[in-house]
Amino acid sequence: MKLWDKGYSVNKLIEDFTVGKDRELDLYLAPFDVLGSMAHGTMLSEIGLLPQDELTKLLAELKEIYKLTQDGSFVIEEGIEDVHSQVETMLTKKLGDIGKKIHSGRSRNDQVLLDLKLFTRHELREVLELGHRLFGTLIKQAEKYKSHLMPGYTHLQVAMPSSFGLWFSAYAESLVDDFILLHAAYRVANQNPLGSAAGYGSSFPLDRQMTTDLLGFEQMNYNVVYAQMGRGKMEKIVAFALSSIAATLSKMAYDVCLYMSQNFGFVKLPDELTTGSSIMPHKKNPDVFELLRSHCNKIQAMPTEITLMINNLPSGYFRDLQIVKEVFLPAFKDLKNCLEIADFALSEISINEDILDDDRYKFVYSVEDVNKMVIDGVPFRDAYKKVGMAIQAGEYEPTREIKHSHAGSLGNLCLPEIEAKMDAVVSQFNFGQVDQAIERLLK
Amino acid sequence: MKLWDKGYSVNKLIEDFTVGKDRELDLYLAPFDVLGSMAHGTMLSEIGLLPQDELTKLLAELKEIYKLTQDGSFVIEEGIEDVHSQVETMLTKKLGDIGKKIHSGRSRNDQVLLDLKLFTRHELREVLELGHRLFGTLIKQAEKYKSHLMPGYTHLQVAMPSSFGLWFSAYAESLVDDFILLHAAYRVANQNPLGSAAGYGSSFPLDRQMTTDLLGFEQMNYNVVYAQMGRGKMEKIVAFALSSIAATLSKMAYDVCLYMSQNFGFVKLPDELTTGSSIMPHKKNPDVFELLRSHCNKIQAMPTEITLMINNLPSGYFRDLQIVKEVFLPAFKDLKNCLEIADFALSEISINEDILDDDRYKFVYSVEDVNKMVIDGVPFRDAYKKVGMAIQAGEYEPTREIKHSHAGSLGNLCLPEIEAKMDAVVSQFNFGQVDQAIERLLK
Amino acid sequence: MKLWDKGYSVNKLIEDFTVGKDRELDLYLAPFDVLGSMAHGTMLSEIGLLPQDELTKLLAELKEIYKLTQDGSFVIEEGIEDVHSQVETMLTKKLGDIGKKIHSGRSRNDQVLLDLKLFTRHELREVLELGHRLFGTLIKQAEKYKSHLMPGYTHLQVAMPSSFGLWFSAYAESLVDDFILLHAAYRVANQNPLGSAAGYGSSFPLDRQMTTDLLGFEQMNYNVVYAQMGRGKMEKIVAFALSSIAATLSKMAYDVCLYMSQNFGFVKLPDELTTGSSIMPHKKNPDVFELLRSHCNKIQAMPTEITLMINNLPSGYFRDLQIVKEVFLPAFKDLKNCLEIADFALSEISINEDILDDDRYKFVYSVEDVNKMVIDGVPFRDAYKKVGMAIQAGEYEPTREIKHSHAGSLGNLCLPEIEAKMDAVVSQFNFGQVDQAIERLLK
Amino acid sequence: MKLWDKGYSVNKLIEDFTVGKDRELDLYLAPFDVLGSMAHGTMLSEIGLLPQDELTKLLAELKEIYKLTQDGSFVIEEGIEDVHSQVETMLTKKLGDIGKKIHSGRSRNDQVLLDLKLFTRHELREVLELGHRLFGTLIKQAEKYKSHLMPGYTHLQVAMPSSFGLWFSAYAESLVDDFILLHAAYRVANQNPLGSAAGYGSSFPLDRQMTTDLLGFEQMNYNVVYAQMGRGKMEKIVAFALSSIAATLSKMAYDVCLYMSQNFGFVKLPDELTTGSSIMPHKKNPDVFELLRSHCNKIQAMPTEITLMINNLPSGYFRDLQIVKEVFLPAFKDLKNCLEIADFALSEISINEDILDDDRYKFVYSVEDVNKMVIDGVPFRDAYKKVGMAIQAGEYEPTREIKHSHAGSLGNLCLPEIEAKMDAVVSQFNFGQVDQAIERLLK
Repeated sequence: MKLWDKGYSVNKLIEDFTVGKDRELDLYLAPFDVLGSMAHGTMLSEIGLLPQDELTKLLAELKEIYKLTQDGSFVIEEGIEDVHSQVETMLTKKLGDIGKKIHSGRSRNDQVLLDLKLFTRHELREVLELGHRLFGTLIKQAEKYKSHLMPGYTHLQVAMPSSFGLWFSAYAESLVDDFILLHAAYRVANQNPLGSAAGYGSSFPLDRQMTTDLLGFEQMNYNVVYAQMGRGKMEKIVAFALSSIAATLSKMAYDVCLYMSQNFGFVKLPDELTTGSSIMPHKKNPDVFELLRSHCNKIQAMPTEITLMINNLPSGYFRDLQIVKEVFLPAFKDLKNCLEIADFALSEISINEDILDDDRYKFVYSVEDVNKMVIDGVPFRDAYKKVGMAIQAGEYEPTREIKHSHAGSLGNLCLPEIEAKMDAVVSQFNFGQVDQAIERLLK
Repeated sequence: MKLWDKGYSVNKLIEDFTVGKDRELDLYLAPFDVLGSMAHGTMLSEIGLLPQDELTKLLAELKEIYKLTQDGSFVIEEGIEDVHSQVETMLTKKLGDIGKKIHSGRSRNDQVLLDLKLFTRHELREVLELGHRLFGTLIKQAEKYKSHLMPGYTHLQVAMPSSFGLWFSAYAESLVDDFILLHAAYRVANQNPLGSAAGYGSSFPLDRQMTTDLLGFEQMNYNVVYAQMGRGKMEKIVAFALSSIAATLSKMAYDVCLYMSQNFGFVKLPDELTTGSSIMPHKKNPDVFELLRSHCNKIQAMPTEITLMINNLPSGYFRDLQIVKEVFLPAFKDLKNCLEIADFALSEISINEDILDDDRYKFVYSVEDVNKMVIDGVPFRDAYKKVGMAIQAGEYEPTREIKHSHAGSLGNLCLPEIEAKMDAVVSQFNFGQVDQAIERLLK
Repeated sequence: MKLWDKGYSVNKLIEDFTVGKDRELDLYLAPFDVLGSMAHGTMLSEIGLLPQDELTKLLAELKEIYKLTQDGSFVIEEGIEDVHSQVETMLTKKLGDIGKKIHSGRSRNDQVLLDLKLFTRHELREVLELGHRLFGTLIKQAEKYKSHLMPGYTHLQVAMPSSFGLWFSAYAESLVDDFILLHAAYRVANQNPLGSAAGYGSSFPLDRQMTTDLLGFEQMNYNVVYAQMGRGKMEKIVAFALSSIAATLSKMAYDVCLYMSQNFGFVKLPDELTTGSSIMPHKKNPDVFELLRSHCNKIQAMPTEITLMINNLPSGYFRDLQIVKEVFLPAFKDLKNCLEIADFALSEISINEDILDDDRYKFVYSVEDVNKMVIDGVPFRDAYKKVGMAIQAGEYEPTREIKHSHAGSLGNLCLPEIEAKMDAVVSQFNFGQVDQAIERLLK
Repeated sequence: MKLWDKGYSVNKLIEDFTVGKDRELDLYLAPFDVLGSMAHGTMLSEIGLLPQDELTKLLAELKEIYKLTQDGSFVIEEGIEDVHSQVETMLTKKLGDIGKKIHSGRSRNDQVLLDLKLFTRHELREVLELGHRLFGTLIKQAEKYKSHLMPGYTHLQVAMPSSFGLWFSAYAESLVDDFILLHAAYRVANQNPLGSAAGYGSSFPLDRQMTTDLLGFEQMNYNVVYAQMGRGKMEKIVAFALSSIAATLSKMAYDVCLYMSQNFGFVKLPDELTTGSSIMPHKKNPDVFELLRSHCNKIQAMPTEITLMINNLPSGYFRDLQIVKEVFLPAFKDLKNCLEIADFALSEISINEDILDDDRYKFVYSVEDVNKMVIDGVPFRDAYKKVGMAIQAGEYEPTREIKHSHAGSLGNLCLPEIEAKMDAVVSQFNFGQVDQAIERLLK
């Protein structure tokens, strides 16, 4: 059954092409489609387009379907093209004509738009929670290893003293900025498009504020043309935010792969986190971090993918947007996977001690020694020249004393301040309002 | 003179290659470099590393240089490789050794990082202000043309009634979401990296909170490794935000180019905004909107450009970041130009009236007529079938009545609500704090 | 069983993450993995590392497995991580220790590299053949509609006379250039990497020329470090070529969507190629072309996806490359699908006649009229001015005569010349050599 | 003066916006614009649209202008918007009305298209020549250092023995594949679009084969709609080819930066090729290679930039294409610069000897030792297990013997074969035909 079937047969090739991966991808959207129908039906009843008793039956049935989506037993049956048709079919089978009435005052475009917003809002929260857990692990490791020094590099050249405390917490603070962007994406996603119909609204006297409240949205996409225009755009903005987190993970993974090399030897992974080689018996490879990096680099291509699909289309809906789902919907699972793996792997990592004792790192102390002279009154340029000449002559011996005390330096990591920054960002996500609304809807 | 010159001559080819476009690009950064030096010097004095009288001289001289950057007379002299060297040279020429002392406790990496943050903060504000002006124009046009109907399309097929009011204000509301992202970028940019030195901090007892306050930053990039890691990353996040605005402009420009075609004829531009053809005497082309679109599409490639340059680099500074400046610094001017042109052109645009009277648009009323039947009690699927069959039989005549009343529909544009959304976003940019700090620094 | 299993248990989460989609994706590679093993085994026997009788058994068994890959009954069993392990397991089950010997002198990296080359060579050929069929359809349609005029646009403004013959054959000629690029990709793919082992060759006296000949490769990737470096790089170059074809299809689809709009009405699709709307009974939407466009736009993001995954990795193998397969392997099916659909849909399209009779297109003749005056001796600038003033005064009436005779113009489409260009490109693909080699290997 | 000026004044802001960087960028195109006019004029005369004596004067004057473009004294005067107007102005100033006649039968679109093709053909040749020189340097270094071993890595883990000979020549062979792509780009560029006018041809009886021959093109873009459609598309295909070369350089630069690190210490650069630090007196940083990498990574974004500008535009010219020039024209200089610098720097690099004597590399021999056992008759899996257990028990001592003899291995680099591959590709560029044509035109 297809909603738009008007009697002529459609070539099988064409049908497969147009349905595409919708039947598979729409499973991501199923619970949200049901919630949307509950809110829409409730509103229809409120404005007099659905008798109260029919609404009661509809809500009861939708709640049953919702449960199926939660325990994994919801399926899109053979021959049904998408989740919206599947839900309507189930309702009609049980309730007859009542099941059809839910479609008044909205269109499939409307439903997809709404489902995508609700799905995205839900997934962004999960990304935030997993990312926040990883943040906690990084802070913990930073605290644990705050006194363990390592060389700091610029240009991959040995530069100045650094520490594992600095290294771990750098990535923690990186997540704070990523979450600022994630919050913006959340604000964009957390707006109600329902009521925009095919992008030009409806002649029904829809109460859009009511569905906004019922679904726990922060606010509304007012303009119906914009509500539709937001499709693809929201996905792109969310892709920006996911990319930013992915970039942080990718960079961290790069560092780990480098530090695992025998040429660095800064960190070690337990055997479960390494893999061997089919021809080299000595290998313990950091495949997990390489895969993490590659997944995260792939995610960083998502903004380009989406942009290429939606750019240079005039306003109004186009079927092109269907393919955006192929890219967008599975990306969350990929990134959440990476966040979990990163959290696990970074909590299992161990570090090597006394790295700086190796003679090849002795120049990390040269700036310290220049600065000591400066604090003792020697002009910077002179101190710099003096130490430089000692190095060139092969006569430089470091004092190996480090006294970094300023905020954010290796002697003063400011972990509580970084945690406070994170808390401030996380607290801006208003999940309580969402939880209450959804609970009310499902009770 | 090069700061790092240690005595050996450097091949001219290599020198040109390494200096690249820095001398040209650094002019963007000049005023911010001076402000940064004023704050750094003040702090050095506070922690006892610069006598008060030397600070006074330095600040006076820096204020003079700042003025040069404001009246356009600041230049980077032949043979000087960047803005930092130029400022130091000017200070040293006037103040001798005092001029060199400003370099204590920071590095060039530090300076560039800081300059980029201050520059970006400044430019984001200008983008916001120009974008806000465009928003105002769009709202005004929406109000003016709220009763002028046009066909709404899906799949570029005539679909349902729309209006110029809806069309103009759709882009206004689009800017609201863009500015949510812009605000996130602003928050990321508005953090003080100064004191991170080469990315590993300093043994000087720097007071980073003091420079944070002096420069009006919201907060600090605490972790010094992260402060450095933020280079390139901030640019990318800002590029996301600029891309989002650019995408809104590009889409609007696409619509205008389409609506200008003789096949649509929805809008007209004054002659000054069209161009002719060297071989076709009848042409009045919307080149301005095509160029707008193309500039904005180019801006949308910036995230990819930056990502390709910074991705898969381990932590720590690399010279690669210099080339990011080539892409990033001029992009603001490009986008601001587009915002100004768009604002001007959209305020000059005129629309054609009574478009829907053309017979080829009569089907836009079909949904209205279905819905009327539904409101009168006919089940939706039956009403849909009835109207559909009338259309296929060539017997459909529309009633041409439209009663859209719900929020965001063509009968109820909710312009004040959209303005309120915008105000809420704009008010989150805390420019007052910045203004006060910079004023205090320069007084 | 995992080849590299050395005794310690591996966390399930980690295992799932590292195996990823390999078991699903490797099915694409199965037949090529078998062919590669046949060639490698034959060569091992030739250099004395595998007794002739064992080779005979191996080849017989491999031929059986090859048949399974051809009739769709080859599966990667539960618990086996990839195609290479599956084939080895099957061989060992049947032949015992002989099955293990096939691994001498190569590594899994070697096998994947080879499989990817053979798979890609095969898929490029299929793309070429489907594209060539589409080319034929376009030429046929161009010939059929060579006298049917349509307006030509610049800036989407009505410009000069064009024809459906020109329009169809423009896309045919576009494919010629795309196939020039496809041929370059084919040349890059059609080189033998086998023998590079893990990227550093082998101490076995492998006869790499022999496997090159056995597998019908044009030549060899000589340098073993480069052979490995070619992984990801070949995929990217192929992605460039597929992108180019995709861009041609996308643009054509865009034109069709535009020309299907009621505002153009240039072409019509049979009902099977349009879809309806769930709320608008009058709609016949060109979803097929929109999906075509969107798929093809997604394919155009593939170079960026691959580049982000492989860029800024130093030389030597990294597990990152596994994720490239997720993007690369399914892309061929996508594009081949699009080529088939485009071929079908464009052969079914019908066009509207006498389009230029509509008055809004009368200015298309203005250049013709200017040129007539020029041929009659009026200087171009004067003729241009004269016609221009007539147009501005509303007094222009076209002569509606068109005499375009030069090569490639609407009066002289040069279809045989375009076909000759295409033949020249297609004939450069040397499929005969490949066919003969594979046949010999399997006989 | 603007060609399309029809009497009304144009706002300065708009004018600046529409002219953009054309006056600066068109200087790249000047000599080619002149050559195109010479060929077009000659053809006009042949078909009777330009008297022979006027042609003689025009050609003489155009040759003078050509000389100006060659000695750097050609300028686009203040107030003239592009190169085409400048040349026409110069001709008209000297020859009066004769100068205007050159515009018969072509349009500015035509000219830009042609100029871009001729410019690109010229630049691709320079890229090839510089790349070929780099190839020679790499082969020379590979020959010089063929016996110098280094560790080969997989996963950045020490894996198997490699050599500098292998490393240098891997990049040489990489350039061969890049040049296969470059050749495809050259074939696409080397086709004559002249005569397509505004994209719909002309009613003049142009002899397009004649201009094809006069300008030394391989063949013609027949279809005039396609000729115009090729704008942007050719640039993208060329961008693919430049990207591929850039990727090779970027990877090589990455290796050098890594090998320069104290943690590797494989290569050394002369002081002229390193830079110091403003705060760390011991630093000798490989900035040159980092900048090389970053430039080349930026070039790799060019396909995305161009795609975003041209994608989803229907057929026919749009002004959007002007901005493609901003990206495309300067890219050649960037890449040529990088090729020169790479050639210089790689010929100056020196390597460290006896790297493998360091104990941390001893496991590189483990595969050799496994293979020795296999050659002596031990099954591979058993030999692998035995060596693996010795390594885990800390008892492994390598034999340090390497006998790699197969094609492309470290004992048999096949440099002559790689050179032969390169020669085969280079010889396919048919520069002789171009040289003869241009010489004839200018004589």
